[in-house]
Amino acid sequence: MNGDKEKLLSVPASPNGHRGIEQSGASAASTRTTALAHERWIARMMLDALGAPPIRLVLWDGWGTGGEPGEAVATATIGDRWALYKLALNPELQFGELVAQGRVRIDGDLACFLETVNRAKARAGFQYLPQRVLGWLYRPRSNALGKSRQNIYQHYDIGNDFYELWLDRELVYTCAYFPTPELDLERAQLAKMDHVCLKAGLKPGDTVVEAGCGWGALARHMARDYGVKVKAYNISHEQIEYARERARREGLDDRVEYVEGDYREISGRFDAFVSVGMLEHVGFENFPELASVMQRSLKPDGRGLIHSIGRDKPALMNPWIERRIFPGAYPPSLSEMLTLFEPSGFSVLDVENLRLHYAKTLQHWLQRYESAVDQVNEMFGAEFVRTWRLYLAGSIAAFASGDLQLFQVTFARHGSNQVPWTRQYLYSEPRSPH
Amino acid sequence: MNGDKEKLLSVPASPNGHRGIEQSGASAASTRTTALAHERWIARMMLDALGAPPIRLVLWDGWGTGGEPGEAVATATIGDRWALYKLALNPELQFGELVAQGRVRIDGDLACFLETVNRAKARAGFQYLPQRVLGWLYRPRSNALGKSRQNIYQHYDIGNDFYELWLDRELVYTCAYFPTPELDLERAQLAKMDHVCLKAGLKPGDTVVEAGCGWGALARHMARDYGVKVKAYNISHEQIEYARERARREGLDDRVEYVEGDYREISGRFDAFVSVGMLEHVGFENFPELASVMQRSLKPDGRGLIHSIGRDKPALMNPWIERRIFPGAYPPSLSEMLTLFEPSGFSVLDVENLRLHYAKTLQHWLQRYESAVDQVNEMFGAEFVRTWRLYLAGSIAAFASGDLQLFQVTFARHGSNQVPWTRQYLYSEPRSPH
Repeated sequence: MNGDKEKLLSVPASPNGHRGIEQSGASAASTRTTALAHERWIARMMLDALGAPPIRLVLWDGWGTGGEPGEAVATATIGDRWALYKLALNPELQFGELVAQGRVRIDGDLACFLETVNRAKARAGFQYLPQRVLGWLYRPRSNALGKSRQNIYQHYDIGNDFYELWLDRELVYTCAYFPTPELDLERAQLAKMDHVCLKAGLKPGDTVVEAGCGWGALARHMARDYGVKVKAYNISHEQIEYARERARREGLDDRVEYVEGDYREISGRFDAFVSVGMLEHVGFENFPELASVMQRSLKPDGRGLIHSIGRDKPALMNPWIERRIFPGAYPPSLSEMLTLFEPSGFSVLDVENLRLHYAKTLQHWLQRYESAVDQVNEMFGAEFVRTWRLYLAGSIAAFASGDLQLFQVTFARHGSNQVPWTRQYLYSEPRSPH
Repeated sequence: MNGDKEKLLSVPASPNGHRGIEQSGASAASTRTTALAHERWIARMMLDALGAPPIRLVLWDGWGTGGEPGEAVATATIGDRWALYKLALNPELQFGELVAQGRVRIDGDLACFLETVNRAKARAGFQYLPQRVLGWLYRPRSNALGKSRQNIYQHYDIGNDFYELWLDRELVYTCAYFPTPELDLERAQLAKMDHVCLKAGLKPGDTVVEAGCGWGALARHMARDYGVKVKAYNISHEQIEYARERARREGLDDRVEYVEGDYREISGRFDAFVSVGMLEHVGFENFPELASVMQRSLKPDGRGLIHSIGRDKPALMNPWIERRIFPGAYPPSLSEMLTLFEPSGFSVLDVENLRLHYAKTLQHWLQRYESAVDQVNEMFGAEFVRTWRLYLAGSIAAFASGDLQLFQVTFARHGSNQVPWTRQYLYSEPRSPH
């Protein structure tokens, strides 16, 4: 167990890490009741099933089990008996629900707690239900053309001012790239954009299509610093409005065209096809359609880059995240990603796994989020605060423990020799005009 | 068509490129007969089916079709009518057979000719027979434990002195790594070994297992320059004898143990698992067994590297190569390679595609081979000379046209954070103690 603690990424302790429990939804009656023998047994069984992680589990009456207070990474307190039952019956979904409602409270570092649990589960081979049953119970929501808009609306149209509270100045909402771990977030996002532009082999005068452009930072970066013309697609109305306004203000609107449209609506042929952080929202059933879009939109010697959250092996998204945070999301394994390339005549040039960079990125986001938590509370209330805290800390834990990966895949058409001779060019200073 | 010519790798013209045809197996009678109308029609149809590559096809009576002599990349002469029929009925197998027998002759640059044909076939979507039928006709030979030895014997035990004629001084018979394309072969093979050692994250004192060690160069390099202890497996008796003798001579036999054994016989647990150029001989049906060997032999925070010839999408090995050169060979696609990693709980850290480096390596080999061709002729005769010339030139063409890929996949266990932060360390000078 000690070995594991050493391996944990150092996560800055968040001073506000366990606020909001005061507004607990637990009924006053149940918190005064002593836990029954079988309830204590359930608590012990739950820890055992998770592979006995070094955490402490406390019931509403103060009784506890698991790691001793001094040794445990953190303590989870279950505020009422119905919370215990719900958790025992459907941990994957209910843990998030109950934490959001304030009925389960984590004292200690939340991300650290979650990473410890992830690692124990992986070691113990814990599986709440077989993937097939989970797939039936928690099938990700459809990403058919009309549904995608709804799914994306739910997450990305919360309001730009909310994201401005805790993202970088350019509003880049994907994994950053830290040439050294100490780099600040602003510079790491610029470094990520350069990394992507270099991998996509951009030359002045090139045309680029971007599928899923967020608030448009990458498209503006490519146009400004690499001298290319960009057509960038996104189905989030709020994001596209923001992106257009910013391009106008920065005098880039002659070189960047933001299209409020789905990747399926991409038209034209381009020197580069770039997509950063969209694939995990596409849904595996739509990969063939995305592949055919890539196929028809890349010139013969063009180059492509897909940057996506992934998995070491196929698995569904956590059902709570799918329900509350990312409707329709499905992070593919690398073999699933390859269904985009192999059947359509693409050649994979390079795959880089940046999962620890995403853990680091999320640490920055969580830290900024906690600094702005009073504003978030005013905007959306305590349950929202807890929901997003859990999502951010849970994502740190997922990337740190390997439950999630971050793959950048560079590709070209089969047989194209317009490819870099080595990858040295990615590591030569200066990397970009900054 | 011109676009294609520009894209061809520049292959040094081989002065001996079309010797040996004098000993043609064509009967004197057939070469004197005029080709019949339907035979000329077959010749034209064949070129059409191949997508009309800019090559010239000449029959035994001097009649020709296809590209005009000045424009064509090269000329193929079919020496007798039965050669034409065989070629038309089973081009994938018979082309090699007939060239080896001297009944089909290529005038001009052989690798260039073959790359041109490959590219035309890919563009035209040429397929002699569906993969399923080919799979039934030309199933690669079995690589069950006993059979592997036979398969490997057929290729690798031809004699060390033969390979010494045209490989580098260290006898490295896998794709080299050229930090710059002009590097000589000796240094490019050293650079490849360093590239592998760095990717495998070797530290002094580490233990390494190598599956399929050839003449043992990489194992000695790791022990000498990276201070590790190596256990290296190979089923080729001649290679193992050579490797042991050389380790003794270089005073490395206390740090390198060469085991005459199959990868399935690997025992022990190691800090690194390395395999360079073996996977393409393993056979896809044996991947689960190799995965379980990797699984049991890697320490929790160990790192692995698999270097293998591959494909952009699943396809059988050319049946002539499988029959005459590499019995049992099957170069997997990347998705097929991933069956080694995903089901067994490995995490893919990095994939690099080095196919153009293999084309370059093979150009060096072919050039050296041609310089030593008189000796090869004395050792094995003219048919062997032509067979190996076609194999080397055909391999240049396959890597240059994208029919074959070269993948280096770096991996660790799921959740291990003992992984490099970026890939910068692969591109810092100096790369190794040389």
